[in-house]
Amino acid sequence: MPYKPPVRDYAFILRDLLELERYANLPAFADASMDTVDQILEEAGRFTAEVLAPLNSVGDKEGCHWAADHSVTTPKGFKEAYRQLVDGGWPGLGSDPAYGGQGLPHVVNLAFSEMSSAANMAFSMYPGLTHGAYSAIHAAGTPEQKDLYLPKLASFQWGGTMNLTEPQCGTDLGMLRTKAVPQADGTYKISGQKIWISSGEHDLTENIVHLVLARIEGAPAGTRGISLFIVPKFIPDQDGNPGARNAVKCLGLEEKMGIHGNATCVIAHEEATGWLIGEENRGLSIMFIMMNEARLGVGMQGIAQAEAAYQAAADFAKDRLQGRSLTGPKNPDGPADPIIVHPDVRRMLMDAKAIIEGGRAFLFWTALHGDLAEASPDEAVRQKGHDYMALMTPVLKGFLTDRGFNVCSDAMQVHGGSGFTEHFPVSQYLRDCRIALIYEGTNGIQALDLVGRKLAADGGRGVMGFFAELDGFIAANEADAGLKPFTEGLAKAKAELQEATMWLMQNGLANPDNAGAASTDYMHLFGLTALAYMWAMMARTAQAKIAGGSTDPIYAEKLAVGRYYIARVLPETSGRLAKLKTGAETLMALPAEAF
Amino acid sequence: MPYKPPVRDYAFILRDLLELERYANLPAFADASMDTVDQILEEAGRFTAEVLAPLNSVGDKEGCHWAADHSVTTPKGFKEAYRQLVDGGWPGLGSDPAYGGQGLPHVVNLAFSEMSSAANMAFSMYPGLTHGAYSAIHAAGTPEQKDLYLPKLASFQWGGTMNLTEPQCGTDLGMLRTKAVPQADGTYKISGQKIWISSGEHDLTENIVHLVLARIEGAPAGTRGISLFIVPKFIPDQDGNPGARNAVKCLGLEEKMGIHGNATCVIAHEEATGWLIGEENRGLSIMFIMMNEARLGVGMQGIAQAEAAYQAAADFAKDRLQGRSLTGPKNPDGPADPIIVHPDVRRMLMDAKAIIEGGRAFLFWTALHGDLAEASPDEAVRQKGHDYMALMTPVLKGFLTDRGFNVCSDAMQVHGGSGFTEHFPVSQYLRDCRIALIYEGTNGIQALDLVGRKLAADGGRGVMGFFAELDGFIAANEADAGLKPFTEGLAKAKAELQEATMWLMQNGLANPDNAGAASTDYMHLFGLTALAYMWAMMARTAQAKIAGGSTDPIYAEKLAVGRYYIARVLPETSGRLAKLKTGAETLMALPAEAF
Repeated sequence: MPYKPPVRDYAFILRDLLELERYANLPAFADASMDTVDQILEEAGRFTAEVLAPLNSVGDKEGCHWAADHSVTTPKGFKEAYRQLVDGGWPGLGSDPAYGGQGLPHVVNLAFSEMSSAANMAFSMYPGLTHGAYSAIHAAGTPEQKDLYLPKLASFQWGGTMNLTEPQCGTDLGMLRTKAVPQADGTYKISGQKIWISSGEHDLTENIVHLVLARIEGAPAGTRGISLFIVPKFIPDQDGNPGARNAVKCLGLEEKMGIHGNATCVIAHEEATGWLIGEENRGLSIMFIMMNEARLGVGMQGIAQAEAAYQAAADFAKDRLQGRSLTGPKNPDGPADPIIVHPDVRRMLMDAKAIIEGGRAFLFWTALHGDLAEASPDEAVRQKGHDYMALMTPVLKGFLTDRGFNVCSDAMQVHGGSGFTEHFPVSQYLRDCRIALIYEGTNGIQALDLVGRKLAADGGRGVMGFFAELDGFIAANEADAGLKPFTEGLAKAKAELQEATMWLMQNGLANPDNAGAASTDYMHLFGLTALAYMWAMMARTAQAKIAGGSTDPIYAEKLAVGRYYIARVLPETSGRLAKLKTGAETLMALPAEAF
Repeated sequence: MPYKPPVRDYAFILRDLLELERYANLPAFADASMDTVDQILEEAGRFTAEVLAPLNSVGDKEGCHWAADHSVTTPKGFKEAYRQLVDGGWPGLGSDPAYGGQGLPHVVNLAFSEMSSAANMAFSMYPGLTHGAYSAIHAAGTPEQKDLYLPKLASFQWGGTMNLTEPQCGTDLGMLRTKAVPQADGTYKISGQKIWISSGEHDLTENIVHLVLARIEGAPAGTRGISLFIVPKFIPDQDGNPGARNAVKCLGLEEKMGIHGNATCVIAHEEATGWLIGEENRGLSIMFIMMNEARLGVGMQGIAQAEAAYQAAADFAKDRLQGRSLTGPKNPDGPADPIIVHPDVRRMLMDAKAIIEGGRAFLFWTALHGDLAEASPDEAVRQKGHDYMALMTPVLKGFLTDRGFNVCSDAMQVHGGSGFTEHFPVSQYLRDCRIALIYEGTNGIQALDLVGRKLAADGGRGVMGFFAELDGFIAANEADAGLKPFTEGLAKAKAELQEATMWLMQNGLANPDNAGAASTDYMHLFGLTALAYMWAMMARTAQAKIAGGSTDPIYAEKLAVGRYYIARVLPETSGRLAKLKTGAETLMALPAEAF
């Protein structure tokens, strides 16, 4: 069965949980009435299921083709699908109306992005990176740069990339060597080799805008000497159309475990012409605008692949007849029961639902804070929005992709032997999903960002605000008998997370290795607690809907999956806390040569 | 860096931990002096590292080739390596001297098997399945069948397979349809299609002996009507040489996520000539001889792939320079520190060592019980050996492959972006390893076998014996201050495992879905406790060696990794217990159509 966009779940989150219509008075939300949003979701579901999903396996099997003239051809069908994407008006959903966008809240665009990624992750990375380049230029470009590039990027007429990594330099951008030499006309000559450039070269757009980190001659060493440049594949002519070919070319493609439909390029800059964006030596801060957007997008990819894999597993489990229920036949007229009757199969499917639906709520809830950080007239709301975006981004990226990969692996397990063959789609979901744990900063880097930077930012204002919000929710709802498992589970997890936070404050300063040693367990403890909060809020919403007379089965289902989460996923928190409190000592005990 | 067989670790386990020389008075162990074993390990290490490992990537990239004449060609180099395997005398290591084997204890052969699998999993499956067929015929064949087939299988001159699965029938063998029609000459005509037959057709051996499950005409329905047949590809002539071509052929190969070098075949039996092995309708019990051996072998594969992946990760972590240690530069003269200085990288490498070395000890300890079950003159020792083999087999298969896969995934994570490319070996380890969670009974089936059959067998004698053994160890060592973390950790885990066992006894009978719902968490709780026992025993051994004056660094390393296991892996048990005690209710709450 093909991918079925979970449109009903988006509507639940946007209408019932986040109550989007509360914000109708804000300009950015004015055009986002739930009727409009429903229509957009339906149409997006159709487009992604009918146009993008059928090309997913094609992209995996065929991959991209590099030719000696440095051109790259995308898999059969990608070009036509991209044309339909552009013609359908999808690109501008979340972009600034000043540059041709529709200016809808990011939270609405996120639903479209998730559906695109679930339907075809490799394909969706082409527009995904384009939007990242759009955001960076939107935030830091000169008026001329904005006028020249943003309309083309907002419409996906041109593509965008991030040129960061070099062979000797991944996480540690201070080791970057690509050079930028200033020219008399104000441009720079960019020289150096970049690797692992997603969407780095392809045949989908008439131009590709590379955003390139490089070091201006004479700049300070390390990260304080890095600048960001716009390096277009074709230099725009006077009319803003693609003109002369720039000296930037694709030397080859990586062979990878997954996302074969996306061109992962080695890119050579050979005195390519580049334009500085933002200030000299301040490139990293602009790059992080792109990077933070990309990290949220990667967290979303974890959930998207998990959703697609879960759907395949659920279909298989309802279809495959094998064995009998432990409590007596459920399909007595058939030769066997469908395997969904078996508790251990249920366990994997329920784990998947608990993580996917809880994780999706966490993504959208955070994205709404991001929207409010920009759009709210209330300074306190804006500040909280910024605080939460900063604090939650590493958790969303690291926790949701770790868990999403596990869901994909469980989905393969539900398939039994069929899942290991390439005749079923789940191997691709598992292989594609795996990159999400690595790129845009490995999950270990996310965990370190969380404990090393985000917790302490502004005197811990973000995390303290989050704890206060959880306390407020628990206090407001602990008298509600129907929500008791949720408020109790959340209170326990929150207490453990707070204890871990205190432990980090006390022990991380004394020995930074303690913070590093605790980081991944802390990130998971944080994610598990955040999802407990999401499930508690969803349960409250669902319970109120049922009390209000709704018979839509989604509300009873949300309560059931939420109770499962509290009973069968959340208990992991205690072990995480116990582990991290043992500190760095046993972890660092061996000399390096013992490995 | 290529795979380096962990010969030193085998010697530690066999000499120091299991004290193999204690059993020198038993016939099966008479030829297994530690000097001999050391030589075998060294030579096996050389063979697997130099002959098998270089072909691992070749097999992955090239795969097997099927031709329209139903022949299958293995990847370039496999045939020559197989010839060296046979010529080197490796096949008969653990086989019966009566049939040309060397009759060494299985525990010695296990080391060779692990090295073969780590060096080249796909290749090692050809001889691995051959040994399974050998064991089944050895256990249940007639004297004529043994004389005809065992020498050829023990020498790997002929290959062997297991023909179980059919398109409609995997786990649920009762649905099997392949037919066997008795002939006047005592043979049977076998007809039916089998799928996912590993090593089902290839060019490595002059003959292939298929062991085929089929239903004799008129046999009872379900699993009580299944018989096992020997169906050779070439029917042996009067001299026992391959004669007439039998009507069994390969219709095609599966495309799979991994183990590309092993031919996974669709096999058609078209009135193929077969010989009954054992009694009519008793095929499953003989098949389970093969299956149990195979399950132990699969648990071993989980550890083997984890070892190979870990080695690649450790090499990468010591080599890759990126960032600085949180506690100050460790490589001040270089541009950055090797990433092994980072605690979160250490965490992944230490997790790997804790699981691999603990899991390996668990495998070898159980295999020794298997040897004693056959060889001990003491009835009580033999019984305990049988009890433990039965009880531990599903744990070894399910727990070690789940954990082995996680180690492979972490090993990829250590590599960062490099790991996702096929230029590094870790993607293959991860992809190859994934099948181990599925075949020979999915890990969910292992968990169900554990809670549904093995716990209750003989009135719970096996598990009660295991608890008594743990209690005995704790009592004997709790006064030892150096072992305190180990005895305390083990005591806590054992108490939790015992509590879970009691809960299962009380609640599994009342509602079988409770047992099913608890099974996977129980299996992991069991595995974690078993590894705590292994680490406690290894710590005691290492401590004694150090006290005895040994300066071999392996003993201090064992103590350090063991302490890490107790501090940073074992705390997971509490969450497992808490989850499983919530029972089946939340897990089974949703109707099937809600998925």
